[in-house]
Amino acid sequence: MAGNSFGKHFKLMTFGESHGDSIGGIIDGLPAGLVVDLERIQEDLSRRRPGSSSITTPRKESDNVKFLSGLIEKNGETITLGTPIGFQIANSDKKSSDYTHLEDTYRPSHADYTYSSKYGIRDHRGGGRASARETASRVVGGAFCKELIKSTSSTEISAYVERVHDISIPSAPKFYSRSEVDASIVRCPIPEVSNRMEQRINNIKEEGDSVGGAIVVVARNVEVGLGEPVFDKLNSDLAGALMSIPAAKAIEIGSGLSGTLQKGSEHNDNFHTVGGEIKTETNRSGGIQGGISNGEDIVIRVAFKPTSTIMKSQTSVDLDGNSIILDGVGRHDPCVLPRAVPIVEAMVAMVLADHHLRNKTAKL
Amino acid sequence: MAGNSFGKHFKLMTFGESHGDSIGGIIDGLPAGLVVDLERIQEDLSRRRPGSSSITTPRKESDNVKFLSGLIEKNGETITLGTPIGFQIANSDKKSSDYTHLEDTYRPSHADYTYSSKYGIRDHRGGGRASARETASRVVGGAFCKELIKSTSSTEISAYVERVHDISIPSAPKFYSRSEVDASIVRCPIPEVSNRMEQRINNIKEEGDSVGGAIVVVARNVEVGLGEPVFDKLNSDLAGALMSIPAAKAIEIGSGLSGTLQKGSEHNDNFHTVGGEIKTETNRSGGIQGGISNGEDIVIRVAFKPTSTIMKSQTSVDLDGNSIILDGVGRHDPCVLPRAVPIVEAMVAMVLADHHLRNKTAKL
Amino acid sequence: MAGNSFGKHFKLMTFGESHGDSIGGIIDGLPAGLVVDLERIQEDLSRRRPGSSSITTPRKESDNVKFLSGLIEKNGETITLGTPIGFQIANSDKKSSDYTHLEDTYRPSHADYTYSSKYGIRDHRGGGRASARETASRVVGGAFCKELIKSTSSTEISAYVERVHDISIPSAPKFYSRSEVDASIVRCPIPEVSNRMEQRINNIKEEGDSVGGAIVVVARNVEVGLGEPVFDKLNSDLAGALMSIPAAKAIEIGSGLSGTLQKGSEHNDNFHTVGGEIKTETNRSGGIQGGISNGEDIVIRVAFKPTSTIMKSQTSVDLDGNSIILDGVGRHDPCVLPRAVPIVEAMVAMVLADHHLRNKTAKL
Amino acid sequence: MAGNSFGKHFKLMTFGESHGDSIGGIIDGLPAGLVVDLERIQEDLSRRRPGSSSITTPRKESDNVKFLSGLIEKNGETITLGTPIGFQIANSDKKSSDYTHLEDTYRPSHADYTYSSKYGIRDHRGGGRASARETASRVVGGAFCKELIKSTSSTEISAYVERVHDISIPSAPKFYSRSEVDASIVRCPIPEVSNRMEQRINNIKEEGDSVGGAIVVVARNVEVGLGEPVFDKLNSDLAGALMSIPAAKAIEIGSGLSGTLQKGSEHNDNFHTVGGEIKTETNRSGGIQGGISNGEDIVIRVAFKPTSTIMKSQTSVDLDGNSIILDGVGRHDPCVLPRAVPIVEAMVAMVLADHHLRNKTAKL
Repeated sequence: MAGNSFGKHFKLMTFGESHGDSIGGIIDGLPAGLVVDLERIQEDLSRRRPGSSSITTPRKESDNVKFLSGLIEKNGETITLGTPIGFQIANSDKKSSDYTHLEDTYRPSHADYTYSSKYGIRDHRGGGRASARETASRVVGGAFCKELIKSTSSTEISAYVERVHDISIPSAPKFYSRSEVDASIVRCPIPEVSNRMEQRINNIKEEGDSVGGAIVVVARNVEVGLGEPVFDKLNSDLAGALMSIPAAKAIEIGSGLSGTLQKGSEHNDNFHTVGGEIKTETNRSGGIQGGISNGEDIVIRVAFKPTSTIMKSQTSVDLDGNSIILDGVGRHDPCVLPRAVPIVEAMVAMVLADHHLRNKTAKL
Repeated sequence: MAGNSFGKHFKLMTFGESHGDSIGGIIDGLPAGLVVDLERIQEDLSRRRPGSSSITTPRKESDNVKFLSGLIEKNGETITLGTPIGFQIANSDKKSSDYTHLEDTYRPSHADYTYSSKYGIRDHRGGGRASARETASRVVGGAFCKELIKSTSSTEISAYVERVHDISIPSAPKFYSRSEVDASIVRCPIPEVSNRMEQRINNIKEEGDSVGGAIVVVARNVEVGLGEPVFDKLNSDLAGALMSIPAAKAIEIGSGLSGTLQKGSEHNDNFHTVGGEIKTETNRSGGIQGGISNGEDIVIRVAFKPTSTIMKSQTSVDLDGNSIILDGVGRHDPCVLPRAVPIVEAMVAMVLADHHLRNKTAKL
Repeated sequence: MAGNSFGKHFKLMTFGESHGDSIGGIIDGLPAGLVVDLERIQEDLSRRRPGSSSITTPRKESDNVKFLSGLIEKNGETITLGTPIGFQIANSDKKSSDYTHLEDTYRPSHADYTYSSKYGIRDHRGGGRASARETASRVVGGAFCKELIKSTSSTEISAYVERVHDISIPSAPKFYSRSEVDASIVRCPIPEVSNRMEQRINNIKEEGDSVGGAIVVVARNVEVGLGEPVFDKLNSDLAGALMSIPAAKAIEIGSGLSGTLQKGSEHNDNFHTVGGEIKTETNRSGGIQGGISNGEDIVIRVAFKPTSTIMKSQTSVDLDGNSIILDGVGRHDPCVLPRAVPIVEAMVAMVLADHHLRNKTAKL
Repeated sequence: MAGNSFGKHFKLMTFGESHGDSIGGIIDGLPAGLVVDLERIQEDLSRRRPGSSSITTPRKESDNVKFLSGLIEKNGETITLGTPIGFQIANSDKKSSDYTHLEDTYRPSHADYTYSSKYGIRDHRGGGRASARETASRVVGGAFCKELIKSTSSTEISAYVERVHDISIPSAPKFYSRSEVDASIVRCPIPEVSNRMEQRINNIKEEGDSVGGAIVVVARNVEVGLGEPVFDKLNSDLAGALMSIPAAKAIEIGSGLSGTLQKGSEHNDNFHTVGGEIKTETNRSGGIQGGISNGEDIVIRVAFKPTSTIMKSQTSVDLDGNSIILDGVGRHDPCVLPRAVPIVEAMVAMVLADHHLRNKTAKL
């Protein structure tokens, strides 16, 4: 049983190798009658596009999504039919020849060895299915989910780069608007920090090396009650979804690691009433208690390792286990974080939409 | 659609409130013909049992599991039939009266408020379904999975307490035997560190407070090829499973957060050949590359927040939003980590067994 | 991946062999706040009980269901909590010794050979998991579903025996009340036909033989919109669910086989308006069009083969393929249909409840 | 939760409306390393193509499938990669204007009313998602499954038209080769019967009417052990899958309805040994016992109602419930059976492949 489907109620199934004909997917389970803004969906996709700034891979992909089904035009609006939404994104700027020398080698910390071992066969061109290119389909799925939860609960999701290498925003996580986030090509909303990050990435790039860091994502105006104990807790599904993003290595929810240094009396979020509504005074829970959203901001940190592709020589082995020297060739991102921002948002949106739909039947 | 089922190929479905008749579950999808050691399964369960040491909750539960189906005795051995394994664990030491005063209140950082909001009704006795008592059923499921992966791939899983509050093992994660782990009631395998942890927990307990920390789990002799890209990656399923454990707040896989401070050239795990086998020189990937196990040790850290139940007075609200003072009453663990060790192992075992079974059809 | 779970949104997972400790299951996905009548649930179960009349197996089982979780008593009512409902039914009247001689033989048209081949091991006592005893758990699941759909859509489900061997009700299928159905031990609502059926069953029983027939099930007041094209059509899920009942061999929906002898102009159900509501003039569609309920009565016929267990000698083979003569021993039903009536109702109830819950998100 | 996915281990998800850009799907879960014959897949699709004979709809669709991912060319062979196979079939001969008059009307026995009620919105052009056009995607999925089960178990599946209206093959169901089946445009392998069927269809067509009938499908060389009790029995999954085909109204497995007129002693399939193999002397079970395949031929009959679209005037209602007269316009099949033959085969192939993969883990 393969793993190319996401979600239990909302479903996204994706296909596509990095250098095949195209990538794409099918979205199923969205309610009929949802008015969608296709430009906003394309915009999300364009934020993830390669070649969009000097610090991303030079691969040029227009990444225009084409919708094949499930939508209808009525009175100038695009509306979901309740039927599956098929979509497709062409692979146009393929330089498969760049990868010919990799057919018989295993690149360090890539998926080459594990794919070959698992499947006995592998599409080596551009990483094949293991390439982060597949995440473009996730962004499309997430964009529809954003439309759904925005229309039904005013939920908004915003992610930003909090740390690159050891350069970090000093203040606590909070919600930043997209214009604040996208003001810099690094997608760090604090200009002074962003500038230093950009410089660091450029330096690393010149060295032929790569660098990682952390993204924070905040969802606000989340409805109370999302999440299904005991195995499909909201935090559990969020952690699983975010850890499926290529290069993700750690997830912290709410107070995360730092909260484990506090005592219970310091860490507990006491309840009080604000304007007739029950709220917590603090939000160390990160908006989730007992696996269920409590209406406070959901706050998550995702850490990404440095990109595995580097322009430096490395030792490795070929398919037969012989030692080889691997020279750096090809196109890559010296730092995946700026382009990972929309992917993180998409995964959170899909989890929230899935649970929004599941929650419809929690009580009579 | 509720969330009380775990796994896609191997399945565990559980039931039970903390103070109901009993808890238990059904295991489905295990192959027929697996010889199981029921004593070893009971032993795992007893490791999680409350009241087993001075630093755990005084609630006394014998936690003897009773099997209802799916097993047959043949020639002195217990063998799986391939049919579902029903099992039950009695709730014997219930003091529901301890909880009467909580019926109309929301305890800080507990699931009271979110359960009430989501379901409109809540079993307040001992936390009901949200109590960590349900994890006993997970330990049973995990114990069967350990039997499966040990018999087919010699895989062994061992977890231990790495940190309590700010007291931590200074050395890098590694595999410790159960006897090393269980030598101390804290389940930290380094005696000197363990002693300090025990002292800290006792001090905190006397204060009426609670404390968190981190558990490391290592799986060794894992077969190559476990994990299904792109959404059901092994790391994704592990993160989701571990984050579903009550009080879990952060997950790190392999190099985790610290790895994000390295450059790609420092972080990549180069391949070499050892005794004819392809291995990595380092293991910053934590045994997983491209979402698929590569045969190296799987290494994960799970951080747990301090227990929400404390013996100190706290401010909160009642069901109507009125301010109240909540006094500490009831039984609880000042630190969940020692008892969480077998739960962490169980979740990892279930994920590995699930993927072991799924991997049977990866190639012709 | 084993097959002991039913439903996608509403879920029932069952366990239990015929002669094991007990049988039972877990129900998940029912909304919280549903007031349930436990006596009505027990009553459904008692309708399926063995030993309840002269024409059923003499095995005596009280079949009292015990609930283990998921329900709470409030103001004299039993209410669902939204958490899983565990339940258990004891196996009390086991005569496993009756089956000792069957350990090494394959009974004709039973599951002995296929279970042994598939699993390599088999619980031969009373048919083990393949015994129709497991259907008691389905009746419990179905009884909860009846409560749900009755409370939300006034839907009522009633099945009856339409045909035994070649003795059949001459009139077209329609809804009969439970008192009409249960007026005879055959569960045929037409007394004159019922008497002849009873006589036939008794004659066949005296011969040591068995007999089959057909059950009709009608669901009325079904809400419009149940069913999810294109693979989870309501008719598709109903056919699959009903065909999973032991001994079921054929399913007809609406006009079924006879409708295929009509021309389109004769068979089509024309629409008209009755009291402001859109209805069909005829109901050859059987209440389902394009896989979705249209509000008319759902009408299905299920045909059951004669019971495989007979009291006559038969030729067969042992595990090694040697020819043997098998004498009729043990307890059995000469005709399964009367006891299958509540099972058919239960399966229909579970499908309707599952789709009732799924339909909650069809449109915004 | 929508219903556009098929299968539990093998998965097919489809998209597409009749008059949208295209239809297609994603296949997931096929093992890597399967050599596939793309021409054979296209051939299956062409058998279902509209406009292929005088008795099918005049809509002209080349129905050439385009593969987008999941396959690789190696040494002149096409091999599965173990990654999802995306595919697309263009909608070229759309005459949406033919349907303009239907936007506000409900056609009798079509899905118009139920789709509008369920979703609140409907793509009326050519039936939208409810059109049988979506089954082309099923044929592609089934064709891959045929390749899998043929390569691993020599399983072959063949369906044929047994009955049109009241013209029927007099002999018992058996396996016919494709050349025998495709010798006539009706796909009935007995020429004399086929000629009468063709004449009947032509007469009915001239009347502007439509007609139904029955298809028999036989699978031979099926491996023993397919099917997962108790809910995912092989017969249950086959019945559900076949009933999801548009216009299917009844399913019979093995002896079906006629077997219910026999006594147990007449109906049971006795075992004997043939050439060292355990076989049944008769096959009233239709190759399935206790929900699991026993190695004998699987024999199923599927009955189809007359096509709902007719060229005669009918009474109906518009969206507001007003009475209308509906004139026959558009293109349609006077008898769906010839084109349903490859669809029936595809559904059986997908069920068998799904269970073939699931069965890999039945025993250690």
